[in-house]
Amino acid sequence: MAKFAKRIANMQASADVIRQLFESMTDPETISFGGGAPAREALPVELVHDIASEVLTRDKRGIQALQYGNPTGIPDLRRAVTDRLLAPKGLTAGMDNVLIVSGGIESMNLVSQLYLEPGDVVLVEAPTFVQAVQIFQLFEARCIACETDDNGLVIEDVEAKIKKYSPKMVYVIPTFQNPSGRTTSLERRKALAELGSRYDVIILEDDPYSEMRYSGTKLPPIKSFDKTGNTIFVNSFSKIFSPGSRLGYIFASEEIIRKVYDVKTATNSHASVLAQIICAEFFNRGLYDAHLKRICDIHRERRDVMMDCIAKMLPDSIKAVYPDGGLFTWVELPQSVNTTALLGDALAQKVAYVPGREFFVEDRDNHDNCMRISFGGVEPEKICIGMERLARVIKARL
Amino acid sequence: MAKFAKRIANMQASADVIRQLFESMTDPETISFGGGAPAREALPVELVHDIASEVLTRDKRGIQALQYGNPTGIPDLRRAVTDRLLAPKGLTAGMDNVLIVSGGIESMNLVSQLYLEPGDVVLVEAPTFVQAVQIFQLFEARCIACETDDNGLVIEDVEAKIKKYSPKMVYVIPTFQNPSGRTTSLERRKALAELGSRYDVIILEDDPYSEMRYSGTKLPPIKSFDKTGNTIFVNSFSKIFSPGSRLGYIFASEEIIRKVYDVKTATNSHASVLAQIICAEFFNRGLYDAHLKRICDIHRERRDVMMDCIAKMLPDSIKAVYPDGGLFTWVELPQSVNTTALLGDALAQKVAYVPGREFFVEDRDNHDNCMRISFGGVEPEKICIGMERLARVIKARL
Repeated sequence: MAKFAKRIANMQASADVIRQLFESMTDPETISFGGGAPAREALPVELVHDIASEVLTRDKRGIQALQYGNPTGIPDLRRAVTDRLLAPKGLTAGMDNVLIVSGGIESMNLVSQLYLEPGDVVLVEAPTFVQAVQIFQLFEARCIACETDDNGLVIEDVEAKIKKYSPKMVYVIPTFQNPSGRTTSLERRKALAELGSRYDVIILEDDPYSEMRYSGTKLPPIKSFDKTGNTIFVNSFSKIFSPGSRLGYIFASEEIIRKVYDVKTATNSHASVLAQIICAEFFNRGLYDAHLKRICDIHRERRDVMMDCIAKMLPDSIKAVYPDGGLFTWVELPQSVNTTALLGDALAQKVAYVPGREFFVEDRDNHDNCMRISFGGVEPEKICIGMERLARVIKARL
Repeated sequence: MAKFAKRIANMQASADVIRQLFESMTDPETISFGGGAPAREALPVELVHDIASEVLTRDKRGIQALQYGNPTGIPDLRRAVTDRLLAPKGLTAGMDNVLIVSGGIESMNLVSQLYLEPGDVVLVEAPTFVQAVQIFQLFEARCIACETDDNGLVIEDVEAKIKKYSPKMVYVIPTFQNPSGRTTSLERRKALAELGSRYDVIILEDDPYSEMRYSGTKLPPIKSFDKTGNTIFVNSFSKIFSPGSRLGYIFASEEIIRKVYDVKTATNSHASVLAQIICAEFFNRGLYDAHLKRICDIHRERRDVMMDCIAKMLPDSIKAVYPDGGLFTWVELPQSVNTTALLGDALAQKVAYVPGREFFVEDRDNHDNCMRISFGGVEPEKICIGMERLARVIKARL
């Protein structure tokens, strides 16, 4: 049979992990700390029902919902993005700076289509979001890891690697990072924007979790310090509205958005208009503030229960990140424990997580003692039961 | 600023045309025979309203609609594809042969990601669908045109060019082709499937229009003659359900679908679940047959009115394809008339079409006398008014 392109071979390894992630979400008896889904209780089903019932009539909007749209996205949703999502973060955007995409993953795919040539280097955090790496590899880029600590990317290491590798892009999730739950400090945000400008590197800032803050103080995005347009800010509606709608957006200079328009046209024309209209109404009717409070309350409780369970059930020698928001904590076991091997024990006990090595692009063997634990999709009582199972499995290996 | 990838420069030219196409749809005074949209009167707004109201409740399906889904698409919609769309075409597909995509354009993008390396050759019809060419060029493929006549691709020319260029793929819209409105004959369908198998070339069969047949006899798809899996059958729900939902599907061997799964995951995870559930219900409630009859009745009338207008209003020296279905006819003016120059006159008279040269990848100057006329999106009375305007403009140039 006709040969697949080279890029397909590049992505094989991590695709299997993604497949497992999706599949672990479907066994009802397994308590899965593996997926990255938000709480099902936080999904605005009733609000979407009411909006859909009202807009889907044979007037202008009902027809608009089912007819072809514009690759940029519908104006109502772009306006919601500029006024209700970007402005509160201190980001001033015009309508022509925003393009609606079909979910956060697609924003990274489109930016990759726009910039990456085979062999280009992308600097990523260690650890980083596995699906982003998969996308960069699909475009035959080489991902190089930069050091991180509790305050995010270590700037000296990023600068040294910019000089050494002349990367096209630095990919960073500065707030409640996936997988580590860590947040990049204010100083480092400034420094990253400046590095992008000074060395003419794209800083791809991915911000799906920052609205879900349960404690601590809000920080401005890297993009707010960008004076040259080198930072491209991408975001998803998956956590604050609904993952299944598949909506997100890209905020960048008009020049870049015009090119993204062409790539979006050749990828899938535009995001589902029905989903866009419902999402736009959700924001423009002013339903978001109360909904966000509800989301944060639900997930804060889960974060608190999870961190209590870790403190009570796991030995003190085990370190866990305390996340001020988002969906994840990152647990480091003693070096003697291999979390990939441990996963078999865990699945047998009907509890799941993602082994830490999956989130590293280099030096994976040195991170075999880590795991990502996702608390967002699990009810509080089940978090306790799941963590009892996991603690038992871990202790048996200590 | 950081440089765009080479692939972006490749697509520039045609992207401007697409942009114009989208924009010509928005001036309310212009009667546009330019776009490829189906009749707004044919959109199932009420059915979608009723389905959305019923499924969006806090039970399993309401939650499913808003939560993450599987890259393959929801089983209910894949089942609707195998049983209600493929089986009636004589195509036997298992659930694992079908993957749901975000619109027909995306199916071509994903297949291109799967197969095309820079420099690969794709054979296309002359004329062909301009957005497909844009996608192949985005993947740095070289498009080579093959001869067509009233029966579709000229097989001898396709075989000669397979031998000469060793293409990776042959792209073909065999039924009510965009832009020509022509249909590939039964013998040539068989021959194309056999060429794919004999020379190990992918035959990418794009079938968005075949359900919209207003006259003549149904023909089996190329895929029905494929014995080796070399034909990949892609389709869209845009014409038979709704363009704005952005849904389509790929039907291929399990081996290919497994790889498309990986690429879909890295493109945008999965199609909008809300749109998928509504579309699946539409088919599984048995609403499609009556809806399709309605679509065909509406568009048949438009086809008839358009062909009458052409016969009555344009001189006999002007040739037009009589399409047995779909949305397009193809008009050839005397060689002395340049349809790109004529478009300025037409727009001044508030009527639009797409100049023929845009649909050719080679030898464009020899097709400057052609135009694509799309009748699907225009009400019958307006077709007459628009054609009066266009006839006046054309006659002034004869």
